[in-house]
Amino acid sequence: MRDVARLAGVSVATVSFVVNDSKPVSPATRLRVESAMVELDFRRNAVARALASRRTRIIALLFPVLQHRLSDTAARFFTGAAEAASELGYTVVLWPEPSDPGALRELTSGGLVDGVILMEVRLDDRRVDQLLEAHTPLTLIGRTRDPSGLDYVDVDFEGMVEQAIDRLHGLGHRDLVLLEELEREDLDGYGPVVRVGETFRAVCAERGLTGRTLRCDANPAGGRAVASTLLEEMPEATAMLVLNDRAATGLVSELGHRGISVPRDLSVVLIGSTIEVAETADPELAVLVSPAAQLGRMGVETLVGRLDGTLGELRQELVMGAFLEGASLAPPPG
Amino acid sequence: MRDVARLAGVSVATVSFVVNDSKPVSPATRLRVESAMVELDFRRNAVARALASRRTRIIALLFPVLQHRLSDTAARFFTGAAEAASELGYTVVLWPEPSDPGALRELTSGGLVDGVILMEVRLDDRRVDQLLEAHTPLTLIGRTRDPSGLDYVDVDFEGMVEQAIDRLHGLGHRDLVLLEELEREDLDGYGPVVRVGETFRAVCAERGLTGRTLRCDANPAGGRAVASTLLEEMPEATAMLVLNDRAATGLVSELGHRGISVPRDLSVVLIGSTIEVAETADPELAVLVSPAAQLGRMGVETLVGRLDGTLGELRQELVMGAFLEGASLAPPPG
Repeated sequence: MRDVARLAGVSVATVSFVVNDSKPVSPATRLRVESAMVELDFRRNAVARALASRRTRIIALLFPVLQHRLSDTAARFFTGAAEAASELGYTVVLWPEPSDPGALRELTSGGLVDGVILMEVRLDDRRVDQLLEAHTPLTLIGRTRDPSGLDYVDVDFEGMVEQAIDRLHGLGHRDLVLLEELEREDLDGYGPVVRVGETFRAVCAERGLTGRTLRCDANPAGGRAVASTLLEEMPEATAMLVLNDRAATGLVSELGHRGISVPRDLSVVLIGSTIEVAETADPELAVLVSPAAQLGRMGVETLVGRLDGTLGELRQELVMGAFLEGASLAPPPG
Repeated sequence: MRDVARLAGVSVATVSFVVNDSKPVSPATRLRVESAMVELDFRRNAVARALASRRTRIIALLFPVLQHRLSDTAARFFTGAAEAASELGYTVVLWPEPSDPGALRELTSGGLVDGVILMEVRLDDRRVDQLLEAHTPLTLIGRTRDPSGLDYVDVDFEGMVEQAIDRLHGLGHRDLVLLEELEREDLDGYGPVVRVGETFRAVCAERGLTGRTLRCDANPAGGRAVASTLLEEMPEATAMLVLNDRAATGLVSELGHRGISVPRDLSVVLIGSTIEVAETADPELAVLVSPAAQLGRMGVETLVGRLDGTLGELRQELVMGAFLEGASLAPPPG
């Protein structure tokens, strides 16, 4: 208002009278005030226009915070992504997935973010279609059932399961158990769970091994509870792959209380977990580490390459994690 | 371009000739096209202006992702914040703190977010000054040395430490140890670390108890390593408060290997940790739970109240966490 007064050569009070129509003002003065407002509007609009066309250099890492727990591993994806973005002059923000699917479209149409990285991808994922329809630049960490035409980077769960089985088989194990989480609606059709289960059964069948599945709550109490199920229902099992890593420490300590020693009586390997979880158990567990930070980084590099036009071909890449031997692998007893 | 052509009463091709200066056009036609462009610019600008003044209803939860690890507890603050925001019609995004402090000011001046919630607050925190200077609506989770005039919600670490000491003292313990993380530059002046240490020493002195401090790496290996330090340097200690919760499980299992049983020989209580960490140890540890999700929620409610003008007075609130007894507390041996 002060700018308008200055440009029109009138007092601030006069501008206020015109704007609010609160006191009579001569037509000539009114015209001067209004002209000044139009003039200033012009200048402001030039700025607004520049802002509107500007890219924000902000990327949303979309994560269903309200539905899936933001685990330690998920946090590592974000850290890797944040590091890569910072190096590339972008900011990646962790964006809780809106409960209203329509709100997904506003993410980029509102001009707030330049593109989206999608996590926790399901085999049939409506979010992918919605974002593609909105012409949102998009990279997946994970992949749908048919990811043709989509940029994605994903954990090579199939490769990791096969490697773990082969290592156990090489030690002489022939009776394996896969420990998963209890079935939950929010995990239904979730890529890693489906792929690990299918691969476990397929590879065990191929190698002529017995491969059964146990499920328990994703916490230490779940692990303690499933220890007795294991001993009662599958006493002949000598090795276990653990996808449900939150239950691992409880399982191992409860087995210890029951006189079952890892690895003397049971070999254990974590699939897609962290070094910290592996080290928390006693003894330290073998682990195929989730390449979380690396995938976060690759996701950002892929999307930024797409945004900047420097990425030519489609990027579709699977990444294995490191295999750390820990102290939980041994030949079967007897 | 089609709109301009329609308004000017010329063909799209003619508009293109004018815009690109690619073919000669009569001065009168050029004027008509240019007038139409100005006219349309006016209308577009009205939209741009509306957009620019529009609040985004996005809140940034600022977290130094590249400096501090995004722990399980930190993730819970975010989850609580995301839930509250969703209920209030806002979106809260986890925003990695820019390494360039100047970039902080752009956060709100760019109109991308309506306000900021600051986490991992130091006693002397330059970010607070920068955000205040930029007139950024601001709420702290945590608090500075002098938080007068600032909205904040914080963990009542002082109250929790006092409660833990009194519980142990009540059991008969007189020789206490506080387990902290190794000193790290990024923890220097970090509120909770300073306040817990000061409160521990002050309350022990007040009650006439021995209160010493041990430090180790914030991981299971650090906990295993510090077990021997404890036994060698402070064999008379009978109770421990653990602020460094990542080391807790390693410490307890290593003590077990050395014949020291929790709680028979040593009582242990976690300060500001999670139920899951407490349950992971064997035996389950006593814990003063970090009220993380609750504080995330309160942070959002406070900031939104400020943004919407519904919060009258300054909000400054300390919150205790629940005390879960676990199985790690007993009278001292002998």
